[in-house]
Amino acid sequence: MRELDPRRVIADLRELDRLTGGAGGAERVCWTEVWEAARGFLRARLDEIPGVQIELDEAGNLWAALPGESEEGVALGSHLDSVPAGGWLDGALGVMAALEVLRACQGTTPARSPMLVDWADEEGARFGRSLFGSSAVAGTLDVEQARGLRDSEGRALPAVLAEHGVELDRVLEAQARRAPLRAYLELHIEQGPVLEREGISVAAVSGTFGVERHSFAFQGQASHAGTTPMGLRRDAGLAAARTALAVDRIARDHDGVGTAGALRLEPGIPTAVAGHAELLVDLRHAEAGRLAAMLDETRGAAQGAAADRGCRVSETRVWNIEPIPFDERLVAASGQAHVMASGALHDAAEMARHVPTAMLFTPSSSGLSHTPGEDTPEADLESAIHAFGRLAARVIGSELP
Amino acid sequence: MRELDPRRVIADLRELDRLTGGAGGAERVCWTEVWEAARGFLRARLDEIPGVQIELDEAGNLWAALPGESEEGVALGSHLDSVPAGGWLDGALGVMAALEVLRACQGTTPARSPMLVDWADEEGARFGRSLFGSSAVAGTLDVEQARGLRDSEGRALPAVLAEHGVELDRVLEAQARRAPLRAYLELHIEQGPVLEREGISVAAVSGTFGVERHSFAFQGQASHAGTTPMGLRRDAGLAAARTALAVDRIARDHDGVGTAGALRLEPGIPTAVAGHAELLVDLRHAEAGRLAAMLDETRGAAQGAAADRGCRVSETRVWNIEPIPFDERLVAASGQAHVMASGALHDAAEMARHVPTAMLFTPSSSGLSHTPGEDTPEADLESAIHAFGRLAARVIGSELP
Repeated sequence: MRELDPRRVIADLRELDRLTGGAGGAERVCWTEVWEAARGFLRARLDEIPGVQIELDEAGNLWAALPGESEEGVALGSHLDSVPAGGWLDGALGVMAALEVLRACQGTTPARSPMLVDWADEEGARFGRSLFGSSAVAGTLDVEQARGLRDSEGRALPAVLAEHGVELDRVLEAQARRAPLRAYLELHIEQGPVLEREGISVAAVSGTFGVERHSFAFQGQASHAGTTPMGLRRDAGLAAARTALAVDRIARDHDGVGTAGALRLEPGIPTAVAGHAELLVDLRHAEAGRLAAMLDETRGAAQGAAADRGCRVSETRVWNIEPIPFDERLVAASGQAHVMASGALHDAAEMARHVPTAMLFTPSSSGLSHTPGEDTPEADLESAIHAFGRLAARVIGSELP
Repeated sequence: MRELDPRRVIADLRELDRLTGGAGGAERVCWTEVWEAARGFLRARLDEIPGVQIELDEAGNLWAALPGESEEGVALGSHLDSVPAGGWLDGALGVMAALEVLRACQGTTPARSPMLVDWADEEGARFGRSLFGSSAVAGTLDVEQARGLRDSEGRALPAVLAEHGVELDRVLEAQARRAPLRAYLELHIEQGPVLEREGISVAAVSGTFGVERHSFAFQGQASHAGTTPMGLRRDAGLAAARTALAVDRIARDHDGVGTAGALRLEPGIPTAVAGHAELLVDLRHAEAGRLAAMLDETRGAAQGAAADRGCRVSETRVWNIEPIPFDERLVAASGQAHVMASGALHDAAEMARHVPTAMLFTPSSSGLSHTPGEDTPEADLESAIHAFGRLAARVIGSELP
């Protein structure tokens, strides 16, 4: 396998952005025509590589393989789909870097088959279920739950999938794709501010944070803002406000992250004390024990805040996932001095359940992602693409893991 | 003037509720057919009193007068209009009590002319401008601002007014109605929990609280809930949460009321730190100096909270009104041991700018109003109606003020 040419990867990314994004940001929302156009661009580039076999699996993931000496395969990829008005690099960087790995293998017969994978619907931007394609391959997709999903226009997921050749009842058959895989490698932007601040071009990712996402509903008594003396109030909004501040303190205490980004007050008008408040809390940590402690303390804070305000509080788990570590040998083999856990979920987390997995991160300017302003300096992209190529060469060459 | 018959007032109120409300609550939103039906009911009752002269003024207020010995008049009233799904007593009690005063004067020639007034659009439920009719008579209505108001269906106020015989450009001509008035008296439910808790059937109102309603907009940086370390966040939602808690403390310190009942976060999703937060703060106090101090301290708290979270804060005054005292002689003449300031605004506040004014309050069960559950025990209603009649008799008889 030859060395990768980062300039070609960057040129492909810019051309993809010109076709499916632009000044208003990327519009490659999965299961749309623009997303299909992005895949058409990818297929055209793949078609330039002799011997590449392109297939869609039952979950709508696109696989493109070059034959190796053995039956063993190494999956390399990410996702072309984006959020609406998204960035040019989120997902696309990893797919185009994988394309460049296939190009670098062109005319050779590597020990293992390099297999580009473009995961379907990583973002979940239209139906709210992220990691769709990778969770199907991992076997963790809840088909019955997916059946009930609708987009903002009321269209059902199964009907939309069918328009793209995907039959919901068969998506878990895509699990067969795991059989030959000996590793999964993904290059992605950090989507956070850490690497830029520390002046680091490439980092290895040790795994993904566990997440506990819970809704806390506070029930007090709505009443008139003018006629209800302070001592007779049961203000659910203030119970929620105190809980939001507690989440911040708890996350700092545990060196994790904790966010109260959504709060709905009822009646939600300036002339009424809020009788009801719903606070959505998102807690994340790389260690399961610390994550559990954060959740316990948040529950205690919510109960204390509710009691102080004469409110009742009820809690609903919205979603959770355990911390998922990546493969220590691959992380070490990446040769990166900086190793960090990922606070965002990635398709790599689904693959890591079954296959030795590694990810590399490259900085996000100002920490921004999911916005047209998302960017990474070209020098960092080049360093990261080279690092990805070196790791891929060793794994495809069967040195690792 | 004879003694009032509270049972007749209550029977009228129940009949009005049957016609224009019911289990789902009162639906007498101003400038609607149901509101006109309520006025039709009132007119039919007035028509039973010989000699009553009924007129609509230029602002849509309904006046019904019995001639007195002099040209002087005493206005007595409140409003038939309600919020959607409102209560049976809010406003209607004062109108029906005034109707009963006219009945009690039937066949007599009182010293001053008793004048029932049913103010138009006290609630502002459809166009957001409360005290419409009374502020027109008081001369404080901003006609140009009113011209731009639209309801939730996009209909403009001037066009809707025209359907009810009101020409916006002429509403301030209703100020002429003030000329004969020597007093204004209003009976209303408290709409708060104080009288019920203290076991008091009737209270005199010393005046209305001043109000400062301000919007505080916090600008931080939206960022990913998973990838943004706590130390690098600029969370506008937490700045707003701390300000909301400060409003509560400041109001208690000053023995006023302060409410942060509306908070909007952007992007407002569980997976993002809020980059923008808008908090609406409503501060009220009966003393102008204390109200100003509350506002100053709230500003300081907002600036401190913003600085702590790396945010900027900007402030907009949404609305304000100064504390308006009622007439001390009339308050004293009401003979009520319990005197309280009103945290809610009333048409009486507009009238008090020009005419000696008094209000009486009767309890609200559980402090509730603006809901179908609004109620007052009949014994309290009867006591309050009797007290209103006694005060009205003295003022109409020219003893006071």
